[in-house]
Amino acid sequence: MTTRNLFLLPGDGIGPEAMAEVRKIIAYMNEEMAAGFTTDEGLVGGAAYDAHGAAISEADMVKALSADAVLFGAVGGPKWDDVAYEVRPEAGLLRLRKDLELFANLRPAICYPALANASSLKPELVEGLDILIVRELTGGVYFGEPKTITDLGNGQKRAIDTQVYDTYEIERISSVAFELARTRQNRVCSMEKRNVMKSGVLWNQVVTETHKAKFADVKLEHMLADAGGMQLVRAPKQFDVIVTDNLFGDMLSDVAAMLTGSLGMLPSASLGAPDAKTGKRKALYEPVHGSAPDIAGQGIANPIAMIASFAMCLRYSFNMIAEADRLEKAIANVLDKGIRTGDIMADGCRKVGTTEMGEAILTEF
Amino acid sequence: MTTRNLFLLPGDGIGPEAMAEVRKIIAYMNEEMAAGFTTDEGLVGGAAYDAHGAAISEADMVKALSADAVLFGAVGGPKWDDVAYEVRPEAGLLRLRKDLELFANLRPAICYPALANASSLKPELVEGLDILIVRELTGGVYFGEPKTITDLGNGQKRAIDTQVYDTYEIERISSVAFELARTRQNRVCSMEKRNVMKSGVLWNQVVTETHKAKFADVKLEHMLADAGGMQLVRAPKQFDVIVTDNLFGDMLSDVAAMLTGSLGMLPSASLGAPDAKTGKRKALYEPVHGSAPDIAGQGIANPIAMIASFAMCLRYSFNMIAEADRLEKAIANVLDKGIRTGDIMADGCRKVGTTEMGEAILTEF
Ligand SMILES: CC(C)[C@H](C(=O)O)[C@@H](O)C(=O)O
Ligand SMILES: CC(C)[C@H](C(=O)O)[C@@H](O)C(=O)O
Repeated sequence: MTTRNLFLLPGDGIGPEAMAEVRKIIAYMNEEMAAGFTTDEGLVGGAAYDAHGAAISEADMVKALSADAVLFGAVGGPKWDDVAYEVRPEAGLLRLRKDLELFANLRPAICYPALANASSLKPELVEGLDILIVRELTGGVYFGEPKTITDLGNGQKRAIDTQVYDTYEIERISSVAFELARTRQNRVCSMEKRNVMKSGVLWNQVVTETHKAKFADVKLEHMLADAGGMQLVRAPKQFDVIVTDNLFGDMLSDVAAMLTGSLGMLPSASLGAPDAKTGKRKALYEPVHGSAPDIAGQGIANPIAMIASFAMCLRYSFNMIAEADRLEKAIANVLDKGIRTGDIMADGCRKVGTTEMGEAILTEF
Repeated sequence: MTTRNLFLLPGDGIGPEAMAEVRKIIAYMNEEMAAGFTTDEGLVGGAAYDAHGAAISEADMVKALSADAVLFGAVGGPKWDDVAYEVRPEAGLLRLRKDLELFANLRPAICYPALANASSLKPELVEGLDILIVRELTGGVYFGEPKTITDLGNGQKRAIDTQVYDTYEIERISSVAFELARTRQNRVCSMEKRNVMKSGVLWNQVVTETHKAKFADVKLEHMLADAGGMQLVRAPKQFDVIVTDNLFGDMLSDVAAMLTGSLGMLPSASLGAPDAKTGKRKALYEPVHGSAPDIAGQGIANPIAMIASFAMCLRYSFNMIAEADRLEKAIANVLDKGIRTGDIMADGCRKVGTTEMGEAILTEF
């Protein structure tokens, strides 16, 4: 029997407000479409720290591990700037990624036509932009050991982080990128720094071999990551799928997101490997934006990225393609109608709060 | 007695063509201003590999170490894509940086007014842009050990790169940034990933302490490096001096350079610590752009970045401030007159080759 268990982790800042709008969509889908979603909810980030002294409790980790999908809001805020490194808000997110083995982070950078003018780039460079960044999410410098600060005496400390990549990690993330490219424009650009990093050398080799062995029909290009950052700014439409490591993916996906002018609206999916028996993938869905503590609690946050993340959840975790398409279309329609939260407000548009935006999308859905 | 010994390493691709124009300026300064420059020349990158089987010869390293300043063109090209990692063209540049202890890389990202329209950003966002990126250049993941690829058997390899930073390295680079800020708008933004990397935690601490101890008059801000990349694209004029580590500096300075629309024109300086006795700093000056093998040898490359790098050399190595100002002004004047190489060609301008551009600048100088 198909289960549709969702575990909601609204987190901090504007996370809970945005999540509230998704909850309404879930309720609507259960009532009107008999979607059969069950939901449970936990704490993550600063909220979890305040309650349990950890960035996520063991009980909530168990729930996250057994859910069909996790919906994640945002974490962090000035209140927790000085908590110990091990229990800082981000640690909750990093533990979820690692323990659920969510190695494939999908970050679409699309430009909503209604928002092309909001980009800092010239509109003709971003109109119709549709890039998919596939970021490796459980390896590299985020998790490699040693990761330490050592006191050397004489007032000197030494900090060490370690970038580690094994063949299989590069193989599986590039396979995801190639597979997704086949459903799009069939082009992959792999980015690393092979001229400086050994992990870049291995990355380049394994991507090349994986391509040759299984995906020779896909067009593959290699680019140095610094040149890739430049090209994203110069002519972003040249890209279809970009595959890169955890740290470069962090930087490059933020740059790409900002280019679109739709930063507050971009979703992401973090996926694990399909289970050998059931074929199910563990998955977590979260907006690309952060917790925006400066506007939290005012009812003015833009819930679109969170709602679009739920659309990715429908698509990737439950294969509800038609519903995902409709939800994405509903977002585009609301924008076309000139309904805007403050962050994307423009001349001649109607300014609304979080709830009204959520309801407008639900009405179009 | 003041010596003015320059060691020229034109390198590969368009490097030699660009360097030829600088050589003319040096000759002019010797003849007309009795500047007293002496020059010697060596090979680096692919050119050195072809001659000696190494990316720079020991003899040329000795010359670089004893020169007052090194002028560096560019390295690399498809011809050397498959040479061994240890002797790849970039290894020559990295060895120069490391052995000369050029820890401070200064990368101005300025927008030449005549070129504001060439940026992919909206002109109002880049007009008058003047950022200085201060990148740490001898530490971090570029040089940390272990840096290896190991065969694990079963068809698996493991690649490791190590990011290492000690207190003194962060202290000296941030001191350079604070000092330079005092000659500008007196603002420094430090970028790292303290939410993920221990080196980011130490970086943040040491910059904060250095600020407090010696530069409290300078305005200091901290930003996560991914957010920094976003902000560079969103509103670059918010920055004055940015200080960051080797790898983030590589990415962020390339993005910043591209934003200006003046990529082919941006110089850089890489400086060592002042000598305890003489006060002299070892120094290397190079364009931000690469070797552009696709247009090499055609006489069409833009020599401005190389000439502007020589202007930085006059300023930082020889304290010839008036001459540096005049050379920079000469470049701006030539652009204002509508004289352009192909890469920056615009309607109504006159297209010239490398030599003509060099001569036009010399005429204005
Ligand atoms: C919050 C932080 C740990 C995280 C990261 O660095 O991965 C964020 O920047 C992201 O991109 O999801
Ligand atoms: C050529 C390469 C080794 C170099 C670097 O990565 O530092 C270049 O990209 C730069 O920014 O100077």
